[in-house]
Amino acid sequence: MADQPSIEFWFDFPSTYSYPAAMRVDERAQSVGIRVIWRAFLLGPIFAKQGWNTSPFNIYPSKGRYMWRDMERICAREGLPFVQPPGFPQNGLLAGRIACAFSDEPWVPTFARAVFTAQFADGQNIADKEILAACLTEAGQDPEHAFEQATTPEAKDLMRARTARAEDLGLFGAPSFLVGREVFWGYDRLDWALQFALDRA
Amino acid sequence: MADQPSIEFWFDFPSTYSYPAAMRVDERAQSVGIRVIWRAFLLGPIFAKQGWNTSPFNIYPSKGRYMWRDMERICAREGLPFVQPPGFPQNGLLAGRIACAFSDEPWVPTFARAVFTAQFADGQNIADKEILAACLTEAGQDPEHAFEQATTPEAKDLMRARTARAEDLGLFGAPSFLVGREVFWGYDRLDWALQFALDRA
Repeated sequence: MADQPSIEFWFDFPSTYSYPAAMRVDERAQSVGIRVIWRAFLLGPIFAKQGWNTSPFNIYPSKGRYMWRDMERICAREGLPFVQPPGFPQNGLLAGRIACAFSDEPWVPTFARAVFTAQFADGQNIADKEILAACLTEAGQDPEHAFEQATTPEAKDLMRARTARAEDLGLFGAPSFLVGREVFWGYDRLDWALQFALDRA
Repeated sequence: MADQPSIEFWFDFPSTYSYPAAMRVDERAQSVGIRVIWRAFLLGPIFAKQGWNTSPFNIYPSKGRYMWRDMERICAREGLPFVQPPGFPQNGLLAGRIACAFSDEPWVPTFARAVFTAQFADGQNIADKEILAACLTEAGQDPEHAFEQATTPEAKDLMRARTARAEDLGLFGAPSFLVGREVFWGYDRLDWALQFALDRA
């Protein structure tokens, strides 16, 4: 097991293209014997340094229109339900802090998929603690404990460090897949990233 | 032949990702019985309306670094030579006007591939008329005649109209593939676009 090849899956909860990636990354990777390391981070601070105060999909309308149509196509192809959530981008800070604070816990992928499903399949607001509580329950966790652990000063620092690490790695969008120092950006690069991980194993 | 399915291939000569797309689009499409309509346009005026006076790959350095590395990987995978051209983005106006003025001539794809090869395989400057003359000769054309026809007021208007049409279609990057009114953006969406064209045929 020590030598099992792995990829890091860097995602941000409000990110549309992170949704199909999150729903499929584990099964695709497992089918070729690759382990997935889930890494929640925040695009907001990275966008802010580029002078953007919202998603580029809002700033550049033609890009935004394309993305919404493209998401419909991708989700149809993947057999995933898809709705445009109320408000975009949503505030994914608390969800991200939870996924970050409990990073290597085996339930994080289940929690993360529940959050993405709530947002992009059920059109719910993931800043709402009740919604997140249901996602935590689905992952077998006690919501109050998770909220508490995810909002300590240490947990907040961890999220800041995680996002700084994303920046150091040169990440500028989500999802991104990391294989060694090699970055693959975008849902549609998942298979390339897996192939790259196999080739270097 | 009237009912042969087709895709429109929208490209801009200075665009890096347009290079592998231009080199492969005809063979991939032909292998599945699809006709390709080549459509040169200018991203510059579209970028300018978004407040960009150069390529976003220059404005956003992490995105630029990723793109150059990604181009190396794509070209290695496609078996295409690749060098970073001297200066980016290059001035592709004259090359674009030629491809636009002679739009439906059968030699345009050959000319376009020669221009992309000069720029991204041989590292030449495609604003240089001597370089373009060699590309025209390779496509069996008289360079002086082509330069003349491509710089008439009518040819300039044609290029403006082409770029306005790209904007109307919602294009915001290159390459883009158009199937009916459906847009697929990016080199890595070529196969999706072809599949979409087959499905609706």
